[in-house]
Amino acid sequence: MDVTALARDLRTGNRRALARAITLVESTRADHRAAAVDLLEAVRDDGREALRIGLSGTPGVGKSTFIESFGMMLTARGLRVAVLAVDPSSARSGGSILGDKTRMDRLSRDPGAFIRPSPSGAQLGGVASRTREAARLCEAAGFDVILIETVGVGQSETAVAWMTDLFVLLLAPAGGDELQGVKRGIMEMADLILVNKADGDLKPAAMRTCADYAGALRLLRRRDYDPPDFPKAMTVSALEENGLEDAWGEMQTLDAWRREEGHRASRRAEQAQHWFEEDVRRALLAKLATPEAQEEMAGLGTDVAGGRLTSAEAARRMLAALEGQA
Amino acid sequence: MDVTALARDLRTGNRRALARAITLVESTRADHRAAAVDLLEAVRDDGREALRIGLSGTPGVGKSTFIESFGMMLTARGLRVAVLAVDPSSARSGGSILGDKTRMDRLSRDPGAFIRPSPSGAQLGGVASRTREAARLCEAAGFDVILIETVGVGQSETAVAWMTDLFVLLLAPAGGDELQGVKRGIMEMADLILVNKADGDLKPAAMRTCADYAGALRLLRRRDYDPPDFPKAMTVSALEENGLEDAWGEMQTLDAWRREEGHRASRRAEQAQHWFEEDVRRALLAKLATPEAQEEMAGLGTDVAGGRLTSAEAARRMLAALEGQA
Repeated sequence: MDVTALARDLRTGNRRALARAITLVESTRADHRAAAVDLLEAVRDDGREALRIGLSGTPGVGKSTFIESFGMMLTARGLRVAVLAVDPSSARSGGSILGDKTRMDRLSRDPGAFIRPSPSGAQLGGVASRTREAARLCEAAGFDVILIETVGVGQSETAVAWMTDLFVLLLAPAGGDELQGVKRGIMEMADLILVNKADGDLKPAAMRTCADYAGALRLLRRRDYDPPDFPKAMTVSALEENGLEDAWGEMQTLDAWRREEGHRASRRAEQAQHWFEEDVRRALLAKLATPEAQEEMAGLGTDVAGGRLTSAEAARRMLAALEGQA
Repeated sequence: MDVTALARDLRTGNRRALARAITLVESTRADHRAAAVDLLEAVRDDGREALRIGLSGTPGVGKSTFIESFGMMLTARGLRVAVLAVDPSSARSGGSILGDKTRMDRLSRDPGAFIRPSPSGAQLGGVASRTREAARLCEAAGFDVILIETVGVGQSETAVAWMTDLFVLLLAPAGGDELQGVKRGIMEMADLILVNKADGDLKPAAMRTCADYAGALRLLRRRDYDPPDFPKAMTVSALEENGLEDAWGEMQTLDAWRREEGHRASRRAEQAQHWFEEDVRRALLAKLATPEAQEEMAGLGTDVAGGRLTSAEAARRMLAALEGQA
């Protein structure tokens, strides 16, 4: 694996080099991992930084349509856009929410865009850590905007918030008082709430929902990395391509303020430290995932279940076995 | 540390030996841990088994009063009762919900009862694992019933359910429709819901709340380790000592059925395996808690935050440092 050549090709913006580089960071093979770490180090100091946008929304809110319309609007402005995903469920489905590129037919054929499905993997931490590295590679390849999408369930929102500069929550118009559908923790992460489907019959409901969320946002505690008026809620129509420029304008306003105030840099520093610690913990626990360790663990587990060993004694033996293997 | 002598004293039911043994399993010193593992192995095959009852209830439901009344009722029947606690917050308060024994003045002076506060510790997993070992030591000391209490918040209920034969949820009478106050996950763990304070003015409210929960329990999916009619909801008054015998009767009925059907044994086997795996994971991560590791981690973290290292490279160096220390 010629890491230097790959880093050079990556820097030219070559899409195949980018795809290969991402495959490398996603690999679990030890030699691949070593090369991936070298590659990330090789591009570390390149001064290239994209705006990383996290995008959360449950199935049915029109996320694919939004990403396609929003992405096309950005590429039409000459911006290069990468779309990544954190989807811990992909291990189950064997694919990814982005696997079916036909959902984003136009964007996937756009030379200014790069779409990559979620890496597969059983553990969210691992999947997310690799997605963050993929985002860094997209920056190194000269992309300007990186959209990282996640389905609006579980802890993947938190993981995405830990790797992005902005967090956008996409919602559908709701009937009546449906605020409780969104967990408070996710509301608190949002920088911008976009109520999609503000078109046709749903437009009045979208505007009502938007007003409800705007009210809810005002009740949240002010965060020190927000300018006045943020976070805010807006309506958009991905289908009719309405409100997308406004949404982009708000994102730019917020990001410009945060960069000026040093918040983007300090949050990225904090994020880097978070993933470093996360990677160390995960690598330690990975010692339990080798075939030898699994076999040892299963054997001791059987003795524990059968009452032939206490849990404590079995744990002691397992750790001794791991030391011996090290 | 003479483990053989301690095991012998423990088996006689000596309370000081039991207290010393529990202190031993709670210790984080390596030599203490080794002795604790030996001690648990020494009593492993003693054939002594108590009924382990998990008891969850938020502050204000009258948990201390219930434990005192219920415990006194059991000791009056000649049963020996141990009261333990899993309280992950004890690390913060420096004490424990059971630390103040004056809350259970009568029970703490009862020769048939043994009360032990929650071990201190920052991590729930560690605190819980030690409490489970303490429960085993109480069994070895000849106790018949072990009550393990937890405050009704966070994940400590799940931990307690993983170390007990029965799970009792203690509630206070509620006004109107307050079912949502109890998380569904906790409802699903309950074998018996006791609505306390069914006395005086609160009696009608207690009966209404009990009926509400009985209805809610019927809507839950049937569990294969339940006889017909379980889980169930009842009213009690810890203050007036009403309904406690009935509650104890229900617990005995349920436990007798589960023992006969083999569920108690199979759940204990499953629990033992769970804590074995939990202990292994925690011991691996404990490698990061040594002063040397903490210093290394802090230094690398500073380089990551300062952009001088990627998270990936820092993680690689940290793991290499841990291998070197091993």
